[in-house]
Amino acid sequence: MNNFKFYNPVKIIFGKGTIAEVAKEVPAGARVLMTYGGGSIKKNGVYEQVMEALKEHTVFEFGGIEPNPHYETLMQAVELAKNEKIDFILSVGGGSVLDGTKFIAAAVVFDQGDPWRFLAEKAAVKLKGAIPFGAVLTLPATGSEMNSGAVITKVATKEKLTFGSPFTFPKFSVLDPETTFSLPPRQISNGIVDAFTHVMEQYLTYPVNAPLQDRIAEGVLLTLIEEGPKVMQNPSDYNAMGNFMWSATMALNGLLSAGVPTDWATHMIGHELTALHGIDHARTLAIVLPSLLRYKSETKKEKLLQYGARIWNITEGSEEERIEAAIQATVKFFNSLDIATTLHEYDVDRATITAIVERFQKRGVRNLGERADIQVEDVEKILEMSL
Amino acid sequence: MNNFKFYNPVKIIFGKGTIAEVAKEVPAGARVLMTYGGGSIKKNGVYEQVMEALKEHTVFEFGGIEPNPHYETLMQAVELAKNEKIDFILSVGGGSVLDGTKFIAAAVVFDQGDPWRFLAEKAAVKLKGAIPFGAVLTLPATGSEMNSGAVITKVATKEKLTFGSPFTFPKFSVLDPETTFSLPPRQISNGIVDAFTHVMEQYLTYPVNAPLQDRIAEGVLLTLIEEGPKVMQNPSDYNAMGNFMWSATMALNGLLSAGVPTDWATHMIGHELTALHGIDHARTLAIVLPSLLRYKSETKKEKLLQYGARIWNITEGSEEERIEAAIQATVKFFNSLDIATTLHEYDVDRATITAIVERFQKRGVRNLGERADIQVEDVEKILEMSL
Repeated sequence: MNNFKFYNPVKIIFGKGTIAEVAKEVPAGARVLMTYGGGSIKKNGVYEQVMEALKEHTVFEFGGIEPNPHYETLMQAVELAKNEKIDFILSVGGGSVLDGTKFIAAAVVFDQGDPWRFLAEKAAVKLKGAIPFGAVLTLPATGSEMNSGAVITKVATKEKLTFGSPFTFPKFSVLDPETTFSLPPRQISNGIVDAFTHVMEQYLTYPVNAPLQDRIAEGVLLTLIEEGPKVMQNPSDYNAMGNFMWSATMALNGLLSAGVPTDWATHMIGHELTALHGIDHARTLAIVLPSLLRYKSETKKEKLLQYGARIWNITEGSEEERIEAAIQATVKFFNSLDIATTLHEYDVDRATITAIVERFQKRGVRNLGERADIQVEDVEKILEMSL
Repeated sequence: MNNFKFYNPVKIIFGKGTIAEVAKEVPAGARVLMTYGGGSIKKNGVYEQVMEALKEHTVFEFGGIEPNPHYETLMQAVELAKNEKIDFILSVGGGSVLDGTKFIAAAVVFDQGDPWRFLAEKAAVKLKGAIPFGAVLTLPATGSEMNSGAVITKVATKEKLTFGSPFTFPKFSVLDPETTFSLPPRQISNGIVDAFTHVMEQYLTYPVNAPLQDRIAEGVLLTLIEEGPKVMQNPSDYNAMGNFMWSATMALNGLLSAGVPTDWATHMIGHELTALHGIDHARTLAIVLPSLLRYKSETKKEKLLQYGARIWNITEGSEEERIEAAIQATVKFFNSLDIATTLHEYDVDRATITAIVERFQKRGVRNLGERADIQVEDVEKILEMSL
């Protein structure tokens, strides 16, 4: 096992009826900015539950945070938060609203110029603080509810960049599976694939003698494979949705990556497909992951074989055959959730690959993957395998 | 899955050479009380590493904290900490030193009379704070390094009681497997059984449709079964010791019990055997657990069958046979670590059972176990099965 640090101070409040707990978790007397997305929370009863919980607080609202939240939109919320002297933000929505909220919370107190700097100039610009915030999660997927990271898109430049800091952990996250019952199938399937790929980025690398981390990762994968189809079939299945929700949270709270190498190349490449074509984040992962696993099957051999055996019961055939069978099982699982895994199914052609290569070259992106051996020319080949 | 709250703000610093990190983690200018046990840290190089890390700090020492730390001993440290205006405590040792440190940290600022009250009068006396503390762990076992609980023994009354509060999480815990290389086999085997039983208390209950929690628990059990014999054979096997150490931490950091019922009757009963006879904590668990599982095999049936199948590959025979085989496999595992599982092997006879029954009756102990259905007469029968 590699040396590691693990720190995660997010309080998780899980289960039905728990939105009421927000009343106690938000500091008394706080001026609260409630952030949300397209307004589904006003149709499914979540808005009313949150407002009831915050009835003793002064509440401002900022809605309209879009999927892959936009810097341009969020800067309006920053302006509002400054003007209204907001001292707590409550994110009510999915991972995009929460990622956007992390940005707002950090940007409000940022005093080193344009807040985009803490994404675009990570090496030079360190965050020194953020106003506190909490979350009511309505969409299991990104894991943002139990980590300090966020992904923000700048429309003007079609850039999709990440940031994170010890100041951007939610103080609490309320996970009530009942808030997700009205989700459309597309968002549920995206969530399953997103969580699944988060695990793969931290698990499907190379062995470092970390059997417990492996088993926890495999536990999340198996649970997603078992519970995913149930929630697709019946989004009001409380138990299945709860298990999916907790799996998505555990998939990216830092535990799986403690002491092991991580890949994240699939995400880095996938972000470009979203930035250029607006393809749902999870779907970009489903496009990239199988090709990346095939392309790196030699350096990922041991883990691919273990993954095949423990997750898909693939134990027969040559190593090559077992690896290919494991990747095909993954594709089949994604397809079973109505998630296409090739670029042409999203009407994306060779020209986009050229564009991504150019963007990576321009930004100096290099040394991706757990062995830092994926270069721009490898990205090109991986994407060609996904055509 | 049941509703739950999970909160664990302990920073884990894991790996070889990490004691040096203490320098940065202890607040600059703090007056530090370093607590330790019988002095083994002065023979294995840990003391020197800690002192080197604290060379910029003002350090006081309090050694001699015994296994099952004594209230009487700890009160001397409380006196010292008050006199010297200590504002940070660093526990250097195993779970007993750390449990004792939690008591000291809380007792120093306790203003409601005798600190024993926050153990003996839990319902009435709430902690309002504690001075901050961190840990350098030298013995994987109790999980105290990543939770807020502690067990303290009052010699005068032969009482062994627990306490815990949101104020008694360590600020950080340094887990360097190399600090454990000089442990005697007895402490290693105790640690394995302690961690194993911690998992069983949270896993071997009844199913509530929480497949991820089950799989994480099973992952810890399997890792302990695999790595335990390796560390017994070679305590300097860094990888095996590291995996054991991380498993012991994960066994009791709150994750396994999130959303599921928990038992803890084995611990409640075992504490009495330590209080009355000084039997090592882990050994009392090894005495009680098999009998308790047999005695409650009807209400624990589903989980016993799952445990047998997933941990010991027991899939043949009637339900009754499979359950008995799973319990026997557990006993065999304990015995393989040189841990005896019957009272007579510890020279304890029927009179002790009578004494425990009387103590439980006097303290009004009742409704133990995940179904709150273990009464004093059941405790008597369970202990009789362990004679």
